[in-house]
Amino acid sequence: MDPVKVIEIKKSVFADNDRDADLLRKELKERGVYLLNLMSSPGSGKTTTLIQLINRIKDKVRVAVMEADIDSDVDAVKIKEATGIQSIQLHTGGMCHLDAEMTRQGLGGLDLKETDLVILENVGNLVCPAEFDTGSCRNMMILSVPEGEDKPLKYPLMFSVCDLVVINKIDVLPYFDFDMDKCRQYIKMRNPAAEVIPICAKSGEGIDALAGWVLRELENWKH
Amino acid sequence: MDPVKVIEIKKSVFADNDRDADLLRKELKERGVYLLNLMSSPGSGKTTTLIQLINRIKDKVRVAVMEADIDSDVDAVKIKEATGIQSIQLHTGGMCHLDAEMTRQGLGGLDLKETDLVILENVGNLVCPAEFDTGSCRNMMILSVPEGEDKPLKYPLMFSVCDLVVINKIDVLPYFDFDMDKCRQYIKMRNPAAEVIPICAKSGEGIDALAGWVLRELENWKH
Repeated sequence: MDPVKVIEIKKSVFADNDRDADLLRKELKERGVYLLNLMSSPGSGKTTTLIQLINRIKDKVRVAVMEADIDSDVDAVKIKEATGIQSIQLHTGGMCHLDAEMTRQGLGGLDLKETDLVILENVGNLVCPAEFDTGSCRNMMILSVPEGEDKPLKYPLMFSVCDLVVINKIDVLPYFDFDMDKCRQYIKMRNPAAEVIPICAKSGEGIDALAGWVLRELENWKH
Repeated sequence: MDPVKVIEIKKSVFADNDRDADLLRKELKERGVYLLNLMSSPGSGKTTTLIQLINRIKDKVRVAVMEADIDSDVDAVKIKEATGIQSIQLHTGGMCHLDAEMTRQGLGGLDLKETDLVILENVGNLVCPAEFDTGSCRNMMILSVPEGEDKPLKYPLMFSVCDLVVINKIDVLPYFDFDMDKCRQYIKMRNPAAEVIPICAKSGEGIDALAGWVLRELENWKH
């Protein structure tokens, strides 16, 4: 297997990220490429969830993944090995988020002609990534059971900007004080329109629902 | 009980944070106040660990806590109710870290004459807080078992700047693929001098070792 491509992302100089993000969204629309931005805390299971999701949809849509990380490339290698799809690593050089221009730099490393859906695995962090529009069509995040149901109270912006909240690691619900109903309430407080899908990325439980959401969004966006 | 004091932290204007942090460290040394900076991902158990630790040491040293959060005050209230010590909330207004000047603003809200040890619970995030010296005497972090043993590979700076890594939620080790030996190896790679203490904040397991480390460090610093 070819080694994974690694792109060193440079700090962007655009003053108006929101405008640049709108521009990127328009460019991607014209090229027929749907960009999905995935955010979460470190260790919530982003990569495992992606592998399950991609293997469930890769026969229906052409998927590529951009893995943002401070300086390792373990995630892009894992994704490529487990799914065989286009997967590149973006090194942020210590930066804690990606903005639209940084995302554009990453997209330059993919063959977009062969791609319908690009999933961006953002830097693991509930604060900074929420503040910067990447130019994505949709934002989703993963909250894992061990983190606790109170996270929408503590990281309001992250939950406000996400269209989908995936609740991962539901297999360990019996061992943690995690109140699913309260969690749904807190999410609703931040974003009444957000969908919530509980999953267990390890066993694959709930991945069909997640795959359904992604394919449905993609279909709606096309038409 | 009095309501918890909330301090709105302003963005600091100091260009040279390292120099300002050294200055703050010197000021605190002169006042006999030891500052411990606690970092982690969201949901790793910082607040529960602090409550256990404080209840174990508050008869020996006068402890105060500063809880940094984007905009809630749930943590400071929890700490105050569970331990009775001085506890204030710092609102960072969306900022993802504290630097030395922001820490100084927080310290201004405490009665330092009545305090030997201030614990700063930094914003939950493995990226940005590691980049800014707060002026603390020591940095410690909590890594929880559900986050996975590979975090020192992905967040190198955080593990390099910490003198102590507490591994929390060891009660759920049977339900996660977490290799404790590998984790210790990875931590050593980043910082050979870092101590590692496994704990379960929920049951109190390992808290004596943690309390011992804190009291020992405080004693060494005084002499």
